[in-house]
Amino acid sequence: MSTIARELGISFGTSPTGPLNAITDVSGVAIGHRTIRAGDLNTGVSAVLPHGGNMYRNKVLAACDVINGFGKSTGLMQVDELGSIETPILLTNTFGVGTCANALIRAAVLENPDIGRETSTVNPVVMECNDGHLSDIQALAVTEDDARAALATAASGPVAEGNVGAGTGMSCFGFKGGIGTASRRIELAGSAHHVGVLVLTNFGRAGDLVLPDGRRPDPRSRREAEKGSVIVILATDIAMEHRQLKRVVRRCGAGLARLGAYWGHGSGDIALGFSTAQTFDHDERADFVSISALNENRIDRLFRAAAEATEEAVVNSMCAAEVMHGRAGHVRPSLADWLREQG
Amino acid sequence: MSTIARELGISFGTSPTGPLNAITDVSGVAIGHRTIRAGDLNTGVSAVLPHGGNMYRNKVLAACDVINGFGKSTGLMQVDELGSIETPILLTNTFGVGTCANALIRAAVLENPDIGRETSTVNPVVMECNDGHLSDIQALAVTEDDARAALATAASGPVAEGNVGAGTGMSCFGFKGGIGTASRRIELAGSAHHVGVLVLTNFGRAGDLVLPDGRRPDPRSRREAEKGSVIVILATDIAMEHRQLKRVVRRCGAGLARLGAYWGHGSGDIALGFSTAQTFDHDERADFVSISALNENRIDRLFRAAAEATEEAVVNSMCAAEVMHGRAGHVRPSLADWLREQG
Amino acid sequence: MSTIARELGISFGTSPTGPLNAITDVSGVAIGHRTIRAGDLNTGVSAVLPHGGNMYRNKVLAACDVINGFGKSTGLMQVDELGSIETPILLTNTFGVGTCANALIRAAVLENPDIGRETSTVNPVVMECNDGHLSDIQALAVTEDDARAALATAASGPVAEGNVGAGTGMSCFGFKGGIGTASRRIELAGSAHHVGVLVLTNFGRAGDLVLPDGRRPDPRSRREAEKGSVIVILATDIAMEHRQLKRVVRRCGAGLARLGAYWGHGSGDIALGFSTAQTFDHDERADFVSISALNENRIDRLFRAAAEATEEAVVNSMCAAEVMHGRAGHVRPSLADWLREQG
Amino acid sequence: MSTIARELGISFGTSPTGPLNAITDVSGVAIGHRTIRAGDLNTGVSAVLPHGGNMYRNKVLAACDVINGFGKSTGLMQVDELGSIETPILLTNTFGVGTCANALIRAAVLENPDIGRETSTVNPVVMECNDGHLSDIQALAVTEDDARAALATAASGPVAEGNVGAGTGMSCFGFKGGIGTASRRIELAGSAHHVGVLVLTNFGRAGDLVLPDGRRPDPRSRREAEKGSVIVILATDIAMEHRQLKRVVRRCGAGLARLGAYWGHGSGDIALGFSTAQTFDHDERADFVSISALNENRIDRLFRAAAEATEEAVVNSMCAAEVMHGRAGHVRPSLADWLREQG
Repeated sequence: MSTIARELGISFGTSPTGPLNAITDVSGVAIGHRTIRAGDLNTGVSAVLPHGGNMYRNKVLAACDVINGFGKSTGLMQVDELGSIETPILLTNTFGVGTCANALIRAAVLENPDIGRETSTVNPVVMECNDGHLSDIQALAVTEDDARAALATAASGPVAEGNVGAGTGMSCFGFKGGIGTASRRIELAGSAHHVGVLVLTNFGRAGDLVLPDGRRPDPRSRREAEKGSVIVILATDIAMEHRQLKRVVRRCGAGLARLGAYWGHGSGDIALGFSTAQTFDHDERADFVSISALNENRIDRLFRAAAEATEEAVVNSMCAAEVMHGRAGHVRPSLADWLREQG
Repeated sequence: MSTIARELGISFGTSPTGPLNAITDVSGVAIGHRTIRAGDLNTGVSAVLPHGGNMYRNKVLAACDVINGFGKSTGLMQVDELGSIETPILLTNTFGVGTCANALIRAAVLENPDIGRETSTVNPVVMECNDGHLSDIQALAVTEDDARAALATAASGPVAEGNVGAGTGMSCFGFKGGIGTASRRIELAGSAHHVGVLVLTNFGRAGDLVLPDGRRPDPRSRREAEKGSVIVILATDIAMEHRQLKRVVRRCGAGLARLGAYWGHGSGDIALGFSTAQTFDHDERADFVSISALNENRIDRLFRAAAEATEEAVVNSMCAAEVMHGRAGHVRPSLADWLREQG
Repeated sequence: MSTIARELGISFGTSPTGPLNAITDVSGVAIGHRTIRAGDLNTGVSAVLPHGGNMYRNKVLAACDVINGFGKSTGLMQVDELGSIETPILLTNTFGVGTCANALIRAAVLENPDIGRETSTVNPVVMECNDGHLSDIQALAVTEDDARAALATAASGPVAEGNVGAGTGMSCFGFKGGIGTASRRIELAGSAHHVGVLVLTNFGRAGDLVLPDGRRPDPRSRREAEKGSVIVILATDIAMEHRQLKRVVRRCGAGLARLGAYWGHGSGDIALGFSTAQTFDHDERADFVSISALNENRIDRLFRAAAEATEEAVVNSMCAAEVMHGRAGHVRPSLADWLREQG
Repeated sequence: MSTIARELGISFGTSPTGPLNAITDVSGVAIGHRTIRAGDLNTGVSAVLPHGGNMYRNKVLAACDVINGFGKSTGLMQVDELGSIETPILLTNTFGVGTCANALIRAAVLENPDIGRETSTVNPVVMECNDGHLSDIQALAVTEDDARAALATAASGPVAEGNVGAGTGMSCFGFKGGIGTASRRIELAGSAHHVGVLVLTNFGRAGDLVLPDGRRPDPRSRREAEKGSVIVILATDIAMEHRQLKRVVRRCGAGLARLGAYWGHGSGDIALGFSTAQTFDHDERADFVSISALNENRIDRLFRAAAEATEEAVVNSMCAAEVMHGRAGHVRPSLADWLREQG
């Protein structure tokens, strides 16, 4: 269970978490990481798999919110138009997007030889943050093999956080950032459902972070302008229509703002959500398909969950990340160390 | 059956029309008109009722596309957010919007006394064009009684076109515009469904109209800049989710463009669609509702229908409208007369 | 100077305020209120004038952000398309929108007799919240005279806050809401500029409010679902292009989120901003006009100002509002009282 | 001069063309092509350079319109947020996007060694259509060297059209598609300005094409569902602000619709425009920059130009393209041949 921030004495809202307090509380979701640490390289790839089957044949509902579009993610235009994703989601550094997209295309073609021949092409979804402060981003070091390794190691259960996968070289509010996760449990129609979040944190100006209790951790570093980004992946097993999911996903931005962010100019702040409640058959033959939609009067519970889980996942990413000495003598301290010093 | 343009020798695409070639081919849809002609006034109100019941209690799916937002329609922001309408739609002149909105509010409160007390408020949807060329728009002549009269006379069956209701004082490509309608039939899941369109036409620069056969009717009037607008109401009995309907509604703009429009700067070109396939209970108690969505691979049929029916409805509005001598000696000739002259 | 929250011991960010800590720190901006308190009526109208001249002839740059579109504001579609406003902005209750729009139309026609005749029509901008909890909204009590009174009393200088104008009957986080304001000073090109905010607060679930110091004020009322709204008006004298202003205005939502809001389903949360740096001549004759745009690398200062001023203006609205006993025995306590009790 | 369609007897609108009737009528714009024809490969890369200098250091205003988002273009999110492009634009097949993006990144880093180190990263813009009908798209055959070759050969002056560069393997309305161009001349402020368009055409169902004179060319092929796309690049030397350019770019879709398109479900129809009137210094030191904006009352001239030039560029792409026998025995006839047969 992801309890790192809670163990350090920080609490988040009043909604109950899922059993793992992780995105993997949504059944079927798997997370994989490929971490690259070599010389000036502190980077990697993380993979989010909505389900373990053929994503192209069995698409899932998806929606995104561009909180601030100074970013280089790819694939989101089609997500908005069609309301679905048809590949796993890869996270990586800004200059690894093209290579990861190629890896997703090749994997999809391998699994579906009719792609680009008898049927349409495939839309790879890759999202990114700029880890150039701690890693040599100019090296374009991420390879298609790295992407395949992240996909191959994807598993359900507890999620590795901090300096791992795409999070390896990221920074957040002047501290070390990285991968974080959290979840919320929601009772609907008499049974437990979950909203889970996984973040890749690389945003926030040093000195701007506000913890839920009002404290303002100080990384004692220069107040540079933001050149970061943050990616929020929201997963749920709650059935919705696309418009509803888009509304839910927008609330991830509220979770960021509560920590003192104002979605800085240079930060590509993007949230992408999907629901595993139902899959959509690429080869559907019926003219109509029956889907389950949420009673809109219940949606506030999901809004609250999205905001709270995002807020907690960000703090988890920072608490789990250890101090890093990176490229060019750059250092990012650990929020966990600061919290422990505070007693 | 709306055959005025076809009787004058113009044909539109290859898809079959509905039995009435009118928006009322969508079962349950009713249209009402209140025409005001007195002195310098050539204006009115038209009402579109998605169904005959309590619209607030039983909302219908709705979506809009702002083709060019130089317009003063009201209520569309909430349609986009919630994907539904909860009042009839009123069409009128630009300065009648506030008064028609008040009439819709009062009618909804009368029927639902809990509005604004035990439950939320109500979102009136009113759309408009500027008929100031032929009518004294500064008079703010439309009254709440006029709005109620349009609502009260709403009926299914054949739709009055041309110089009627909100269309009374409108202009189109230098000719007389007004109200027009058309429809297309689509077979899905083994039975006939319909896409119907009703337009309020007040757009297009004189000389720009191109008929489907390539002819360019000339109203012999000054080439003024566009100061008009066009409202397209699309109705269907095909089940969809909101995102799908929004995609369909966007294709109404293609129908306008085929006639030579480029969605002029000064023209508020707005399309609003709704589906009667299902109603949404304001007081829904279940956490989830089952809805029917369209197999996305069938959606091209609806795109084609939306574009073709819009194109035909516009030409019908012009063919049905008779020459009008309006305010300040302004005259708008009839396209029907031009077509008859051509033989 | 608007110091009510600061006098009660609450501080907001680190940026300096303007001299009045009010939207009127932006030179030329004037605010007027018409308060209606009679029997079950606790409502009113507030007016925001970007400048004292003819708004139709001399438009100002404007942009809006629909944070959550469950609202009935009117006029925003054209603001998005044309990037300007051409009337004062009126704030009122949800069912007063149509009447206030009519008042703005009549005022514009009176001042510009060519409207709807020789030139285009006019786009009234009216924004709203639902004060039905404390006021009899079904009465449609706001008249065009009330709108004119708000416009006529508009003045620069200190701004009345709390239970005044459109804010008279509003509620916020279970407390009494209303009108609030705040501002931030920004040095650019060697001189002082300002970002000012005026809010109409009627949002937030009881128990969700978090003060900047982490305290969670409790109004000891029922946890009802949100049926409110919040309107944020942002004014600035900083020159920008429309896209930049839209980015700035989006950050108002971050200010709301910092107070614990997640932009609830039933809440129409809308931000509208304008810049007085330059006016746009309705009758411009030149083909090109020279405008001043912000160096995008400076925009974070405005983002921070928008978020902080919004946050402070909301708390000011609550601190300035006195307890109100309204319609049907409903009561809303004052946050100021709660803060004083806390010592 | 691009006169292929005009020489075959087709005319388009009444606005005058530029001297070349090509996108290169906009001074400084250069076009390059790399054509790949080998075995089952009929593909390539085309490059559009807004100016000949350092695009990262001297960005140009840009805006896009997603007509139908079933496409895999990359880089557009940031174009929308920041209103500028900072690399040349590459066009290629759907599975070449990642590789072309990598080539643009490497070229930008080579020219600007501070990218991703002392300054922000770079946003590569790559757009695509699916040429899988005539070419083996699964081969991922496009290399970074191909991208560099397209960039290296870019030149002003007449533009090669038809089966060239990214257009090599494209199809349009059942005929052979490819690269096409056209332009319009607009007098403003006493001197000649231009709107130029370059298209990559791969859209439209066989049988749907309507020529401006009403003729409906028949490729005598199967009526397949659309699986294509169309990319429209609009260039101009007219000064505007971002919102204005976005309005202009939206009118490219009207040009497509006039030819019988309804922006089919499976077609990624995207328009991207830029203005060379002014460059934006990446290292700008002043707080404000003076820019020139268009008098909005003149914008209809640009709307008309965008629609007409798009329409003509599409027909040019088809008239210039020769019959192609591609992968798997697939054949696409030439529209020019059909037109010549008609006499």
